[in-house]
Amino acid sequence: MSATSITNEYVRQLDRQHVFHSWSRQSQLDPLVIAEAAGCRLHDYNGREYLDFSSQLVNTNIGHQHPRVIEAIRHQAEQLATIAPAHANLARGEAARRILERAPAGFSKVFFTNAGADANENAIRMARSFTGRDKVLSAYRSYHGNTGAAIAATGDWRRVPNEFSRGHAHFFNPFLYRSEFWATSEEEECERALTHLRRVIECEGPDAIAAILLESIPGTAGILVPPRAYLQGVRQLADEHGIMLILDEVMAGFGRTGRWFAFEHFNVVPDLIVFAKGVNSGYVPAGGVLISEPICRYFEDRFFAGGLTYSGHPLAMAAIVATLDTMSDEGIVEHADRIGRERLTPGLAELTKRHAIIGETRGLGVFHALELVSDPESRAPLPAATMADIKAALLEQGLLPFMVENRIHVVPPCIVLPEEVDQGLGILDDVLGRFSLTL
Amino acid sequence: MSATSITNEYVRQLDRQHVFHSWSRQSQLDPLVIAEAAGCRLHDYNGREYLDFSSQLVNTNIGHQHPRVIEAIRHQAEQLATIAPAHANLARGEAARRILERAPAGFSKVFFTNAGADANENAIRMARSFTGRDKVLSAYRSYHGNTGAAIAATGDWRRVPNEFSRGHAHFFNPFLYRSEFWATSEEEECERALTHLRRVIECEGPDAIAAILLESIPGTAGILVPPRAYLQGVRQLADEHGIMLILDEVMAGFGRTGRWFAFEHFNVVPDLIVFAKGVNSGYVPAGGVLISEPICRYFEDRFFAGGLTYSGHPLAMAAIVATLDTMSDEGIVEHADRIGRERLTPGLAELTKRHAIIGETRGLGVFHALELVSDPESRAPLPAATMADIKAALLEQGLLPFMVENRIHVVPPCIVLPEEVDQGLGILDDVLGRFSLTL
Ligand SMILES: Cc1ncc(COP(=O)(O)O)c(C=O)c1O
Ligand SMILES: Cc1ncc(COP(=O)(O)O)c(C=O)c1O
Repeated sequence: MSATSITNEYVRQLDRQHVFHSWSRQSQLDPLVIAEAAGCRLHDYNGREYLDFSSQLVNTNIGHQHPRVIEAIRHQAEQLATIAPAHANLARGEAARRILERAPAGFSKVFFTNAGADANENAIRMARSFTGRDKVLSAYRSYHGNTGAAIAATGDWRRVPNEFSRGHAHFFNPFLYRSEFWATSEEEECERALTHLRRVIECEGPDAIAAILLESIPGTAGILVPPRAYLQGVRQLADEHGIMLILDEVMAGFGRTGRWFAFEHFNVVPDLIVFAKGVNSGYVPAGGVLISEPICRYFEDRFFAGGLTYSGHPLAMAAIVATLDTMSDEGIVEHADRIGRERLTPGLAELTKRHAIIGETRGLGVFHALELVSDPESRAPLPAATMADIKAALLEQGLLPFMVENRIHVVPPCIVLPEEVDQGLGILDDVLGRFSLTL
Repeated sequence: MSATSITNEYVRQLDRQHVFHSWSRQSQLDPLVIAEAAGCRLHDYNGREYLDFSSQLVNTNIGHQHPRVIEAIRHQAEQLATIAPAHANLARGEAARRILERAPAGFSKVFFTNAGADANENAIRMARSFTGRDKVLSAYRSYHGNTGAAIAATGDWRRVPNEFSRGHAHFFNPFLYRSEFWATSEEEECERALTHLRRVIECEGPDAIAAILLESIPGTAGILVPPRAYLQGVRQLADEHGIMLILDEVMAGFGRTGRWFAFEHFNVVPDLIVFAKGVNSGYVPAGGVLISEPICRYFEDRFFAGGLTYSGHPLAMAAIVATLDTMSDEGIVEHADRIGRERLTPGLAELTKRHAIIGETRGLGVFHALELVSDPESRAPLPAATMADIKAALLEQGLLPFMVENRIHVVPPCIVLPEEVDQGLGILDDVLGRFSLTL
């Protein structure tokens, strides 16, 4: 089939006939067809345009098809597409150096993986080996990936059918709007969440716990910006008991919150940092673990029992080098910070005032969520059927949203322009206005 | 640093300073520096050449830098580098179609992952969901990847420090040279291995077993070509008890054995096929699961609880399309078959006759192992220190080998030329001759 004769229908048929999809019932899929993209814009084969307020799976921080990153992939592909992890490769060393330059002091090496899940697997592995302990504590409101240990660490419901790993326990993380601690203020939520975590640590046995694994800002779970002092409190609890603190920055890292790492907002430094997505905007699959000095030292003369065929894949590495250089040169992280403060935060606050259907809005940088409710008093989540109608209406108006349960995550690329924010918020205003009337 | 001033030393330093390596002690690494590659040849920055008899991690089946695959990556990168798995994408549909065209009848969809480990994870997940059972049986002599369930399914010693998954049990697979069953012939080994497996199934509880997971030909474990009737026997045992048969073709598949799938040698069809590596020669990280019709049907209206950000990544998919088309157009699978039968098998048999240090050689296609022993009678494995010396001597002579424990795996790209086979075997002859003298 020649390129010019390709149609949406052909691509959709090909997909439905041959491709098995993630997290779904296969008979209930009607995938959007995407032919090409640039910046924050996507197009199908009919030339229909969508404004990308999803960054796909919150990964295209640099936007679609940034020419410098595409050029770097082309260049590396022509030089050396693949090489085993045991060998030394220029792009891999350069990528590691650039990531370390952006990390806090005290981090000295990078272990590369293919994605977020296997990065969490290997961070957990390092913490278990380093501490000689088995258990990993993580939050109920969290997502850490789909492989054995990563899905067992995950707190959301997708863990349950996949719970085949031992040594995992979960705790409630702070989320004032739906407090698990009967708290009525941010300070109270923070204090009680820390008391709760201390009790879980005591009950699980402090000496049995290798790591506390947390998203710096839980993403898929609802962009739950923690109270200012929470992560410091967790750090203290970890230190008290010799527990490693692993911060999962897969979704929140590399510009998303207007910082290189989301934990920078909270004046805390973990022992291991897990990354993926934004590090190269997902142009080539990549993830990894940033390892602090004591853990690196531990593995100098001890065997590290982990590895994978594509660790430090040259194409992924070249994409990281170009992405990070470009983000620095173009001030993309600062842009995300500014557009968040100046446009998204006030714009979403404005929407919240106007539409009773929005129970709460929260976030920072280009990392925001709208919590939709059918009753502002009881905070009852908007039903799934209504959410599906809202999604269809947004797509109809050319906005590609990222929707989870009763929420719209407002997560455009970090490069989103002020006028694109205005366009997106305008569509949200219009659609949510229509649905608010039905409340 | 400009491209012309890059040196081996610079790249090695950069690596040792910043990059954390797989499966090793970090202080004991002296990685080979690779600057560029083509076909079966690698070069460092001094222009020093290595003949690649490793295919890296047995993945570059099509050889290095095949221009059609590089061009396809470039083209896809310029069109659309990344898109979320929920959307429909042309390259993804085309890749799935081509893989299914090469599979036996009865397979109807492909679920894409980033690599071999997460492909095994998802195959296991599907089998557990489909059967409603938990346990997975796999072989002690096996490697299935480094994530939670994949490493717990793995049989080799690397499983032990990582055993944090439940529902896994292991059995001995056939390997006459080091029989676990006191067998003295191929037929006896086969029969006893099947009796042993039947007993393990009975003892683990047939109704508790979701899947038997096997490499069609265990690779890292030593290229253990099973007796002709073994896999059929396993298939029968699985059928008797409603157990899914998952064949892991990550290393053995896509041309390596002179067939698209290694199980074609054994007249058997599994329920799920796991692939990675050769499907696009690792030019872009990719793996996946081929799903048979009944399992696809099961998931039509039932939720599949698995997924990953880069499932069906466009660059990986474009590389699959180009790799498979090229392998077909250029007859690369047939070439691997022929070069195996005509050159490698007889050539290695000849070496075995000449050098007492070789206990056994086995394999097919471009998938062979030399078992090195310090005593042909007791079959005692050659000690690690001697293996390291042999490796150094092979590298010194410009041959990059793939070595595991006391074995040299002879695994060049499928495109290896007759004269390259002769060159490689010549170096092996010379080096093994020198070491045989010391026995
Ligand atoms: C915080 C977090 N961790 C880990 C993952 C898993 O990453 P991947 O899908 O690349 O395995 C995700 C994916 O959304 C994530 O958001
Ligand atoms: C048979 C087999 N399965 C699975 C894997 C794991 O693949 P990956 O390293 O891409 O996760 C390997 C890797 O060598 C393998 O040989």
